[in-house]
Amino acid sequence: MIIVKIGGGEGINLEGIIEDLSKVQEKFIIVHGANALRDKLAEALGQTKQVITSVKGYSSVYSDDKMIDLMMMSYAGIRNKRIVELCHKHGINAVGLSGLDGKAVQGVRNKGIRVYQDGKQKIVRDFSGKPESVNKALLDLLLEHGYVPVLTVPIVDEENNAINTENDDVVRVLQHSVRAGTVINLIEAPGFLVDKDDESTLIQKMSPLELESREQQVEGRMKRKMLAVRKLFEAGATRVIIADGRPEHPVADALSGKGTVIA
Amino acid sequence: MIIVKIGGGEGINLEGIIEDLSKVQEKFIIVHGANALRDKLAEALGQTKQVITSVKGYSSVYSDDKMIDLMMMSYAGIRNKRIVELCHKHGINAVGLSGLDGKAVQGVRNKGIRVYQDGKQKIVRDFSGKPESVNKALLDLLLEHGYVPVLTVPIVDEENNAINTENDDVVRVLQHSVRAGTVINLIEAPGFLVDKDDESTLIQKMSPLELESREQQVEGRMKRKMLAVRKLFEAGATRVIIADGRPEHPVADALSGKGTVIA
Repeated sequence: MIIVKIGGGEGINLEGIIEDLSKVQEKFIIVHGANALRDKLAEALGQTKQVITSVKGYSSVYSDDKMIDLMMMSYAGIRNKRIVELCHKHGINAVGLSGLDGKAVQGVRNKGIRVYQDGKQKIVRDFSGKPESVNKALLDLLLEHGYVPVLTVPIVDEENNAINTENDDVVRVLQHSVRAGTVINLIEAPGFLVDKDDESTLIQKMSPLELESREQQVEGRMKRKMLAVRKLFEAGATRVIIADGRPEHPVADALSGKGTVIA
Repeated sequence: MIIVKIGGGEGINLEGIIEDLSKVQEKFIIVHGANALRDKLAEALGQTKQVITSVKGYSSVYSDDKMIDLMMMSYAGIRNKRIVELCHKHGINAVGLSGLDGKAVQGVRNKGIRVYQDGKQKIVRDFSGKPESVNKALLDLLLEHGYVPVLTVPIVDEENNAINTENDDVVRVLQHSVRAGTVINLIEAPGFLVDKDDESTLIQKMSPLELESREQQVEGRMKRKMLAVRKLFEAGATRVIIADGRPEHPVADALSGKGTVIA
């Protein structure tokens, strides 16, 4: 089994990824993002991100109903269905699922953030949270009958609300459940770069034991990504490949050793 | 088996419909629209409907890539996932599927329309067509394992493109395949009205033999709807209920004999 995480960046070559996957013999599950599409759509709709600041000074994006609608449009709507369409064009019988569908991905909603409002302290609770488990029975049912699940956010919380979450966390709970031999993480970079602006600093091979120190070498998105990879190994991963989602053959390249292989 | 077609009008009481369905003992499949939502979203995005006129003078909406994206956002995105969310809140384990997912609804793309362009005749082909069949194996697989399929457009064509189609046609091919004992069609009216502006002209009972003459009594949307109902009987329907989707208990009302019962 392979889990293929497709990043939501604008430069990701979806066509190439799906073409490659049509030649893969192993079973696989796709998890995808759509952040560039979501941001573009939010802009077109004049829907600005609401940021809230906690009493301790931490800022976070506020996922209100409108934000969940936006996720449903971009992740579960356009991106999910266009990937499913591409799959069919390459002979892959895909079924697109948000975490809501058949409770494919179940999570727990965040408890709320303490903020100041009109001079008073108040708890503000949005529709975001963390995934806890996947509906393995449903995924197995589909896989056993020749369907390829294509998963994305939103997911469902303990009170059956649609909630926003990180796709990296979805991949982690999925890995914990299906124990894939390989997780491929397709991003808009050649792999793990010590200096994000210098492709010659690509690390081609890494031991899971190095992950914590490598995490300290980098900043921003890559730091979060390395933390997510570390958690993936805690969830039972044996091989994670961080690879470039932009070239002609992203998956074939990744499986032939390009990118950063962590094993 | 019951097929529940939920119209895409703004006044439809989704919450009431799903609450009612949670008390229904029979198995059911939901097919839903989202036309009001689609139009609202198109307006917000400044995306105007493109209408093309054939050389013979017939006008139709042109379903380009952008229109399909819009269908994915509104039908397969927001509306489908919000209905699935509502289902879970009422204990119904729903799985939302566009016609693309697992090729749930397969169709044939329209061949194109002959138009004048820059003084020359030209064939213009959009992404629209007619459904031909459903993937009954997939629907049965889900139903047998306790999941309720929630179907919507777009569907998949013979070359694996996402295409637009009428949900009434989807209901017809679905009925042809699953042979539901009852089809409930929830709309923004109390049922079949001889005079659409006078609710006292509601016809409560109708024989399928009357359908053709009743179709001649009305205009516009209702005329098309009656044609769709007639085709439903050709597809093996034995009872079709056209009922109001707006009151507190649309499905309970329909099953207790309110609306127009055609049998």
